[in-house]
Amino acid sequence: MAPVEHTGTSTALLTDHYELTMLGSALADGTADRDCVFEVFARRLPSGRRYGVVGGIARVLDAIMDFRFTDADLAQLHATAVVDDGTLNWLSGYRFSGDIDGYVEGELYFPGSPILTVRGTFAEAVVLETVVLSILNHDSAIASAAARMSSAAHGRPIIEMGSRRTHEQAAVAAARAAYLAGFATTSNLEAGRRYGIPTRGTAAHSFMLLHDTEEAAFRAQIDKVGADTTLLVDTYDITDGIETAVRVAGPELGAIRIDSGDVGVLARKAREQLDSLGAKDTRIVVSGDLDEHAIAALRAEPVDAYGVGTSVVTGSGAPTAGMVYKLVEVEGRPVAKRSEHKASRGGRKSALRRHKPTGTALEEVVYASAAPPALGDDDRELHIPMVRDGDQVGGLPTLDDARQRLRRGLVSLPWEGLKLSGGDPAIPTTFT
Amino acid sequence: MAPVEHTGTSTALLTDHYELTMLGSALADGTADRDCVFEVFARRLPSGRRYGVVGGIARVLDAIMDFRFTDADLAQLHATAVVDDGTLNWLSGYRFSGDIDGYVEGELYFPGSPILTVRGTFAEAVVLETVVLSILNHDSAIASAAARMSSAAHGRPIIEMGSRRTHEQAAVAAARAAYLAGFATTSNLEAGRRYGIPTRGTAAHSFMLLHDTEEAAFRAQIDKVGADTTLLVDTYDITDGIETAVRVAGPELGAIRIDSGDVGVLARKAREQLDSLGAKDTRIVVSGDLDEHAIAALRAEPVDAYGVGTSVVTGSGAPTAGMVYKLVEVEGRPVAKRSEHKASRGGRKSALRRHKPTGTALEEVVYASAAPPALGDDDRELHIPMVRDGDQVGGLPTLDDARQRLRRGLVSLPWEGLKLSGGDPAIPTTFT
Repeated sequence: MAPVEHTGTSTALLTDHYELTMLGSALADGTADRDCVFEVFARRLPSGRRYGVVGGIARVLDAIMDFRFTDADLAQLHATAVVDDGTLNWLSGYRFSGDIDGYVEGELYFPGSPILTVRGTFAEAVVLETVVLSILNHDSAIASAAARMSSAAHGRPIIEMGSRRTHEQAAVAAARAAYLAGFATTSNLEAGRRYGIPTRGTAAHSFMLLHDTEEAAFRAQIDKVGADTTLLVDTYDITDGIETAVRVAGPELGAIRIDSGDVGVLARKAREQLDSLGAKDTRIVVSGDLDEHAIAALRAEPVDAYGVGTSVVTGSGAPTAGMVYKLVEVEGRPVAKRSEHKASRGGRKSALRRHKPTGTALEEVVYASAAPPALGDDDRELHIPMVRDGDQVGGLPTLDDARQRLRRGLVSLPWEGLKLSGGDPAIPTTFT
Repeated sequence: MAPVEHTGTSTALLTDHYELTMLGSALADGTADRDCVFEVFARRLPSGRRYGVVGGIARVLDAIMDFRFTDADLAQLHATAVVDDGTLNWLSGYRFSGDIDGYVEGELYFPGSPILTVRGTFAEAVVLETVVLSILNHDSAIASAAARMSSAAHGRPIIEMGSRRTHEQAAVAAARAAYLAGFATTSNLEAGRRYGIPTRGTAAHSFMLLHDTEEAAFRAQIDKVGADTTLLVDTYDITDGIETAVRVAGPELGAIRIDSGDVGVLARKAREQLDSLGAKDTRIVVSGDLDEHAIAALRAEPVDAYGVGTSVVTGSGAPTAGMVYKLVEVEGRPVAKRSEHKASRGGRKSALRRHKPTGTALEEVVYASAAPPALGDDDRELHIPMVRDGDQVGGLPTLDDARQRLRRGLVSLPWEGLKLSGGDPAIPTTFT
């Protein structure tokens, strides 16, 4: 093992065992250096979904840059005999030196969209499969669900508060994906640090129960953070809670939160009560098992903001995006699995999206990269260069760019494409 | 900010913003020091499930030990004005100094089971809510799904291979939870390092496509790792693939893997073909979108092992366990939310499980800790001490202990409790 020193967090063992077994065999028989193209795509969208949202690209690129085998990693692989010394030696010098092109974060995708194309030797590209898919499948699942919620909320802000319902690190990535998809803020402090996402939060029921009375709890909160805060009014009786809240905070009270019950009915009653108490500018925040359908159903109610937890961090019924990482080209020759199930299309591909002159999307065109079709005035190429010779290309989109991209993308969909009910993909994918 | 130096990975920002807002208010009004008991429980099991499996306890205890605010954490909270300087100063010295009791990993749980009881001041206990729930909700969801699969597999080994379908760090925890629940091995190399779980893996379709012929791919693999390996035979034509596999490896071939199609029918045909080729000891591994129902349906087929991915890492339809962390006691006085929805039971609680003399479980008895019922010969107390004055109690169960615990727990269930179809919890929960 070469004594290469790596610092920082390595992503190299976030990898399936078989990637290294394949690597060992390919190094031994001389095929490891063959020039290969792997493609990430989804065979289909989750049942009934009309579009997917690409999330996690920036995290993927970072993970590839951090994909180095530390001495500790190599010692582990040696001790457990995962690979032999020759393969360990090769891994000790690992650095991805190939090219990556793909869809930017916030871009819509459809069945067969070539979301990411990784070109390199078999050896250097195959070992990235697991971590690339882990990130894209998770983050895209969350972004896709969150986009439906943002769309259903029609401009009302959504607070992401699902950290407690998912793995502690997945929670940070989920907060990022939800923000990408239009959520306004998150409860997750680490997401605030890591990605600069605005964090928010005021109080839970435990804070009310800690105090001898609801009034004492409200007073403690107001004394500390001022009247422009959100008071949680449903610990005991909501009507009493609202009356106490306005008495303690005055009509300058920022907001109340209702976290249980039939929140639509309760919001209407609360609005009337707040108005009658002179708290006409006090906002109403609702939370508690909301998903995109519940949000849509509340459209006509006097709700000012939504808090969403479980449904967004679990992808609202589709917790993984089902993307795969398939070898499509070897030494310039298209390859594809040919058995009757799970067949795939060989060859390196790119994509463009055709639109009407009005801007409405018409179709996703997936084509052989070597034979691009003519680009019409209303067409948009979807692949951008992301990595060249192992280095990240400069000027890749930021998280805020991704938010903008998605907003424009949703506006471009045919109107049926934004329906929450189950249906076909919003636009067809054409392979040329 | 006190210049406390912390090393290692801090879990302190894996926390919802509101925990710190509440902390700030409670420090200001003097309630922060009140002696509190928080309880983790699930109001219900996921729809139709008959039992849950506790997973993640060891990870929770480690996360609590690592819950220290580093200078970088404090600088972030200062820069984003999450809390004021007084609160920051308090956080800089944070160390949990209370007591924790609970269910061991691998223990079954039911609606209302007091899975974890955290006792400390409000301040020190409230801030742990998010990370405790993240870990328990994730790991218990995976362990609960995996236990159904292990039970359906009736002793045949299951390989966990779902890393690519979930967040890259959730994948490591999922591999651990699946192993806890009886899976034999995992594909995830980091789970091998972190938890000592045996890892396995041989080859993907890309390895077949990399080579000019299937025969060349098989030969490369056999030459490298010997005939006692698993050859993936469904890249082109399965019958041809099996014929080639046995020709290349000889009848000593360890196993074949079939990853697509109607795996039951294909396994039967493959068994006949292998036998006719003299490869009577060559095992058959099947994979590809298997869940507990598919595993059960394959019981009569000549399958030797299962590879399970998506369904186990996503909790097979229930990706989160829905556990909550509720304040149940303040200064020795029971407290509970009293509004009409999401009501909860106040007071510090413990639990025991009653059994018939034959060992079959009868009921989960949840009782006030201060008033334990008489313990019969066939009853078992479910709470064990885990943390005292902030230090982990010695001799807590290992991951292998948890596997044994779960195995015994499943045997103790009434027979309907192991049915995969939807139904009520296997035993009732009685509150005394």
